[in-house]
Amino acid sequence: MSKLIYLDNAATTKTAPEVLDAMLPYFSEFYGNPSSIYDFAQKSKEAVTKGRQQIADVLNAKKEEIYFTAGGSEADNWALKATFEAYKSKGNHIITTKIEHHAILHTCEYLEKERGAKITYLDVDENGIVRLDELEKAITPETILISVMFANNEIGSIQPIKEIGRIAREHGILFHTDAVQAFCQVPIDVDEYNIDMLSSSGHKINGPKGIGFLYIRKGVKIKSFVHGGAQERKRRAGTENVPGIVGYGAAAERAMKNMKERTEKEIELRDYLINRLTTEIPYSRLNGDRVKRLPNNVNVSFQFIEGESMLLMLDQNGICGSSGSACTSGSLDPSHVLLAIGLPHEIAHGSLRLTLSEETTKEDLEFTVDKLKEIVQYLRSMSPLYEDFMKNQK
Amino acid sequence: MSKLIYLDNAATTKTAPEVLDAMLPYFSEFYGNPSSIYDFAQKSKEAVTKGRQQIADVLNAKKEEIYFTAGGSEADNWALKATFEAYKSKGNHIITTKIEHHAILHTCEYLEKERGAKITYLDVDENGIVRLDELEKAITPETILISVMFANNEIGSIQPIKEIGRIAREHGILFHTDAVQAFCQVPIDVDEYNIDMLSSSGHKINGPKGIGFLYIRKGVKIKSFVHGGAQERKRRAGTENVPGIVGYGAAAERAMKNMKERTEKEIELRDYLINRLTTEIPYSRLNGDRVKRLPNNVNVSFQFIEGESMLLMLDQNGICGSSGSACTSGSLDPSHVLLAIGLPHEIAHGSLRLTLSEETTKEDLEFTVDKLKEIVQYLRSMSPLYEDFMKNQK
Repeated sequence: MSKLIYLDNAATTKTAPEVLDAMLPYFSEFYGNPSSIYDFAQKSKEAVTKGRQQIADVLNAKKEEIYFTAGGSEADNWALKATFEAYKSKGNHIITTKIEHHAILHTCEYLEKERGAKITYLDVDENGIVRLDELEKAITPETILISVMFANNEIGSIQPIKEIGRIAREHGILFHTDAVQAFCQVPIDVDEYNIDMLSSSGHKINGPKGIGFLYIRKGVKIKSFVHGGAQERKRRAGTENVPGIVGYGAAAERAMKNMKERTEKEIELRDYLINRLTTEIPYSRLNGDRVKRLPNNVNVSFQFIEGESMLLMLDQNGICGSSGSACTSGSLDPSHVLLAIGLPHEIAHGSLRLTLSEETTKEDLEFTVDKLKEIVQYLRSMSPLYEDFMKNQK
Repeated sequence: MSKLIYLDNAATTKTAPEVLDAMLPYFSEFYGNPSSIYDFAQKSKEAVTKGRQQIADVLNAKKEEIYFTAGGSEADNWALKATFEAYKSKGNHIITTKIEHHAILHTCEYLEKERGAKITYLDVDENGIVRLDELEKAITPETILISVMFANNEIGSIQPIKEIGRIAREHGILFHTDAVQAFCQVPIDVDEYNIDMLSSSGHKINGPKGIGFLYIRKGVKIKSFVHGGAQERKRRAGTENVPGIVGYGAAAERAMKNMKERTEKEIELRDYLINRLTTEIPYSRLNGDRVKRLPNNVNVSFQFIEGESMLLMLDQNGICGSSGSACTSGSLDPSHVLLAIGLPHEIAHGSLRLTLSEETTKEDLEFTVDKLKEIVQYLRSMSPLYEDFMKNQK
């Protein structure tokens, strides 16, 4: 196969070469522990401070409000579990949605089962958007936290975060958002949006794997999730991942610099791909909101198709796509997100997520559409369901 | 200053250049998410599998028993919190020691305060070694876990792990050991030592920062600490830190290959340093066991000296040392480890930890001893305590 067409940038991204370059000196040259007091370690400390500032700048936050973690999942776990512990004397109720990432959903299940939390899982509309009236109705005097993801990792739908933030603030409830997919893809201002906590992950924005952060607004009194040393203002123990933090900061700065240009190009290509797939392949449908959508996300269902076969055939043509979250691969259950927006099981099974990057070209997508048309036709030709359906159409 | 003499390898180590070389392809070339199903991601998956095997080989464990984390602190938190949750119906009592790392001690405090655990903190002898009879006496029918570090991070004392493992096994109690300082420094066999869980960290063995693991013996029924995706056999959520895992595996393999030669050299240099410091500088003493001691650890107290001033003056001479754990720097409290082995506050304050690496030379240590003699003399000349003491000697 001549060329790799990587269309799974929601699963992970390439570490940008200039990001890696920024990281390199901190492995074998300036390798000091930032907590040490000698001059040699100052280089590491300064690098961590710079990375923290670069991240804070994206959010209009203060650098003291950025706490580095191992990734988005740890940040989500921290936000939910520590909020529950810190505020459980006030109430035990958390509101979230049915389409959150499993780092939220499974943490909520844990809190329900092991810690006595009560969780409301909000439905979403057919485009995957939370209904604000239902959110307001779900609030009780016991509600201590609203956690709604900024943008969905599977179908790309962007939530009305500003309105949710306003509702949370009006009721004196903390608001956390999992922004793993949205960070550096859409503008985020934690003050304007009344966000109290926000999770993110480095490897989704051309930074390295193994680094993330939790933004915690000054005044939010959650304690540690990882107990131990005094790192991260005594809130997250463990020697700082200096190269990871440097890379994350560099990736964030880079992504903000090219954000407008990059996302405009991605939106154009995204819409090209959506239009061709949904018009040229019959019995297909776009999943997720047509407009309130991540710039790089395409998610289309093809009726009478088994998603895994489609992925394998795409792979044979050098095209990397996914059926949904990478974190749940290996499971035979259809996506909880697609079920939540009302897709029947059999259609959810035939879904394909393609997520673009700044490197994606129109030629890549032309090739992908051409191949997909062949693949869908081939797989349908072998599908008894499709055969029955076509007979009934006659 | 001409040369850096880095003697703080217990705080962190240089990532070995060949370790970094092994990692590099996994940032921008083979960057796929190991959970993805296309061929491109197989490279990442295979790299993770290889790293897991390299780690398992060090411990005589199976690779399915190695669970990657962000570092030693997360591994310690996981072991203690998840064991408590999984076994609390059996009992709520945990036995540990007064000289553990804060990742253990602060986690124990959390479990006591927030979750209803009862913790016994064992005393140690004057060399920092647990007394086995006291351990046995501390066991109650409620005891579910014994957590004793393999070797101490400040004073280097190596615990009788095999005997502790035997006692735990005889009483049907789980045994966890924080081996962050011992991994790849001393031989460890989880079967021979009856270890059920073991924590470790990459950056202590010339691997990268931001990666660690928890060994969990097959059959130990602890659940997740970080909930979410299905990674790490559904026990630790979050996209795998592929370059970190590759580097950790490479560092472990490398460290095991040169272990005998490296530690023999370190022991020789360590003993040279200990002998010169304790014989040529009056009113000094070695902390920790003289024999059951990590190959690279020197910890000496100098009476009438304030540790921080000593460190700063060493730094002015290009020598990196520490007063104890890097994780607690910034605190003015004397080391809990030194207090536990019976040092009075004022002597604990004047303690210096120097930890060697394979790169340490005899010339480095000669220079360090010469400088230290000058520094100690200088600082004592300004110390009113020393003046009083000398007057009373006359």
